[in-house]
Amino acid sequence: MSDSPLLHPADNASVREADTSNVFHSWSAQGTLAPFVIASGKGARIWDYEGNTYLDFSSMLVNVNIGHQHPKVIEAIKAQADVLTTVAPAHANNMRALAAQKILSHAPAGFEKVFFTNGGADANENAIRMARLHTGRDKVISFYRSYHGNTGAAIVSTGDWRRIPNEYSRGHKHVFGPYLYRSEYWATTPEQESERALHFLERTIQAEGPASIAAFLIESVPGTAGILTPPPGYLKGVRALADKYGIVLILDEVMAGFGRTGEWFAFNAFDVVPDLITFAKGVNSGYIPAGGVIINNEIAHAFDERVFPGGLTYSGHPLAMASIVATIEAMEEEKVVENSKHIGATVLGPGLNALKDKHSVIGDVRGSGVFWAVEFVTNRDTKEPVDAAWMGKLKAALLAHKLLPFMADNRLHVVPPCVVTEDEAREGLAIIDAVLTELS
Amino acid sequence: MSDSPLLHPADNASVREADTSNVFHSWSAQGTLAPFVIASGKGARIWDYEGNTYLDFSSMLVNVNIGHQHPKVIEAIKAQADVLTTVAPAHANNMRALAAQKILSHAPAGFEKVFFTNGGADANENAIRMARLHTGRDKVISFYRSYHGNTGAAIVSTGDWRRIPNEYSRGHKHVFGPYLYRSEYWATTPEQESERALHFLERTIQAEGPASIAAFLIESVPGTAGILTPPPGYLKGVRALADKYGIVLILDEVMAGFGRTGEWFAFNAFDVVPDLITFAKGVNSGYIPAGGVIINNEIAHAFDERVFPGGLTYSGHPLAMASIVATIEAMEEEKVVENSKHIGATVLGPGLNALKDKHSVIGDVRGSGVFWAVEFVTNRDTKEPVDAAWMGKLKAALLAHKLLPFMADNRLHVVPPCVVTEDEAREGLAIIDAVLTELS
Ligand SMILES: Cc1ncc(COP(=O)(O)O)c(C=O)c1O
Ligand SMILES: Cc1ncc(COP(=O)(O)O)c(C=O)c1O
Repeated sequence: MSDSPLLHPADNASVREADTSNVFHSWSAQGTLAPFVIASGKGARIWDYEGNTYLDFSSMLVNVNIGHQHPKVIEAIKAQADVLTTVAPAHANNMRALAAQKILSHAPAGFEKVFFTNGGADANENAIRMARLHTGRDKVISFYRSYHGNTGAAIVSTGDWRRIPNEYSRGHKHVFGPYLYRSEYWATTPEQESERALHFLERTIQAEGPASIAAFLIESVPGTAGILTPPPGYLKGVRALADKYGIVLILDEVMAGFGRTGEWFAFNAFDVVPDLITFAKGVNSGYIPAGGVIINNEIAHAFDERVFPGGLTYSGHPLAMASIVATIEAMEEEKVVENSKHIGATVLGPGLNALKDKHSVIGDVRGSGVFWAVEFVTNRDTKEPVDAAWMGKLKAALLAHKLLPFMADNRLHVVPPCVVTEDEAREGLAIIDAVLTELS
Repeated sequence: MSDSPLLHPADNASVREADTSNVFHSWSAQGTLAPFVIASGKGARIWDYEGNTYLDFSSMLVNVNIGHQHPKVIEAIKAQADVLTTVAPAHANNMRALAAQKILSHAPAGFEKVFFTNGGADANENAIRMARLHTGRDKVISFYRSYHGNTGAAIVSTGDWRRIPNEYSRGHKHVFGPYLYRSEYWATTPEQESERALHFLERTIQAEGPASIAAFLIESVPGTAGILTPPPGYLKGVRALADKYGIVLILDEVMAGFGRTGEWFAFNAFDVVPDLITFAKGVNSGYIPAGGVIINNEIAHAFDERVFPGGLTYSGHPLAMASIVATIEAMEEEKVVENSKHIGATVLGPGLNALKDKHSVIGDVRGSGVFWAVEFVTNRDTKEPVDAAWMGKLKAALLAHKLLPFMADNRLHVVPPCVVTEDEAREGLAIIDAVLTELS
């Protein structure tokens, strides 16, 4: 191996310096980077090169559901590395078949095929492709409050600011999904928000022309946009509209799936079955880049005779597949999904709501499992968001208290690994409490 | 680990059956799949679950440049797996900085930043994004004879049949690149083909409007389209047109780079420096999914103050980075690029040309390093391609002789790993010779 001092860094500064000299960073201006430095981790903790340990309440990009450095997954990667590290997608290999079986064992009835990709963006690209070819229609309807990935169709499906400099694909329409706390529909109850958002969606379908709409691409629980758990009846209503107008329902489970909400798939809590399910992140906690599309039988068989015009070199990569098999098995054995649900119901939910009672800067708390958003406002009546400077102070204070947070706009997303213990969850809540007290 | 019989398959049929039941395959009709089964490999050989060993003259999807199961790369993956398997792209980690340094050490002067992706498609997506934002222009000019990946902008940049059912992105124009054997420009010499293809490219720029063109996206040596080594002066001419009209030159080195042509970058042989270089495959031989963009200083610094609106969860994944560092080091230590050049110059080039002299079904032989195309025709004068049935027979016969081939249209691509030995290369040539004799 290289004799570079970077192999065994003595301090954070040398890594930060090397990184900012030669690594071009996502979603950033490159001139003002001061990245946080991570050397290693275990479970819900990570540490740097100088002995500072942090509680990881971010799960990185909300992907490390099984926690850092899970021994079973690491062993599976190493064992597969000794056998076969790469294979072309056209060939068959045991691990790819096994990973597909494992994933399908948690999918609803009627799903028998998995298409593998490298991450969430290309999962959505291929799901959109399947929907368009299957329906012979163009348009994809998604939410303004959404993120679906950074490639051609995925970034234009995305609703947030990241879409705007990237609008090069045709056939994308956006609507406002339900979000009672900041209703776009003058609603005052969850039921009303659900009904009105559905009404608006149907009016949009009619105005766009149902025969032009290939798919709904919707996060079962919009994640980066604010952990916007859909109100009662909403997803069932979307399913009914999909059926009524012959539209393919793609549920994006990239962030919400594989335990995050306390379910194997977030849509399980809403008594709804999509046509295509896209996944990445939690499927193997990002130990190897992987994602994919779980395809219902109707759409899968539509390509029995017809060529599917999509693919990628690393579709069904052996190490990715081995890590998926081991991750899902470990999650089953260790009841990781159940733990996520339990932590949400008994610690994070009650704890965050108690913080809301105590700190008036908290405007809203919502979520389930280990997937919670805390929204900060300067005034509970006007719901005016706190500003970026306040969020910067919050972040610095949380880091000073050794908690690594995930932040978006005026929100703290409380998203530890699904394996977080009750004690760790309480420890995190206590830090947030202390910091909010400091800041007030 | 799972107790599934798939973990230790006893035969190929059980793997093939499990695979076709649950895995949805790229670029295929799903009803008629009979995938080749691969269990493991070493160097330039792979084998199945029944003891059959094959000479890998495909390098899978032309990505296993360093050969199968290189011990140094496997060790690096295992060592990194013990330290850190995943980290969010916003944070800094030693392996990412080191991988960037290693890659940049082989890039031309004036390149100091690397943006990492999961593969070739998203590398091209992000290069196109950089070019569009840097120039403020929309259009991307690429070749009809090209493949650039399966996502939104990459698939519409692609020129081959795979683009056609996927045309959802705007701003893409295609031209015919130089290809003397089947000239679109009535040329009879390489110089004439080069000049005329450049003339046609410039006329296209003028007709499209230079101020609308953001980028050329060109494979330094178009790969899947037929290993179309550019004629003398062509790439320099493209560079001159890029300079004249303020167009960003993106060279796609996903397949041609990292030793394939006998150079670290294929463009090194043509005395030209692009503005952006996209890579994947050979950078780590696909041991972990990885790709990226090497960015020249002008474009990198254009994003010092301005936010770059692109990114992905696994940008700079630690295992991918560790495998890149180890792969490049092993290639340096073992002179893998030099071997590729040597094998091309002394064994494959002369050997394939000798086969052409012997077998009239060979219409053309071209390439360098371990990157060769053999084009089959029914008639050397009309250059009529052989049909799919003949290619099917060729494939079956090569497999029966225990050589795993890479085929496209009427061509055999002779693309073994860059570590192939002289003996293995000769063994492969002898098999091709025997099979062509059988078929004639
Ligand atoms: C809901 C959702 N979909 C898709 C993606 C894109 O995944 P990737 O970054 O792996 O391309 C993300 C990433 O955050 C996501 O949260
Ligand atoms: C020249 C070229 N560019 C891009 C790609 C796409 O790479 P990936 O399959 O990793 O997305 C390929 C794949 O074959 C390629 O050959």
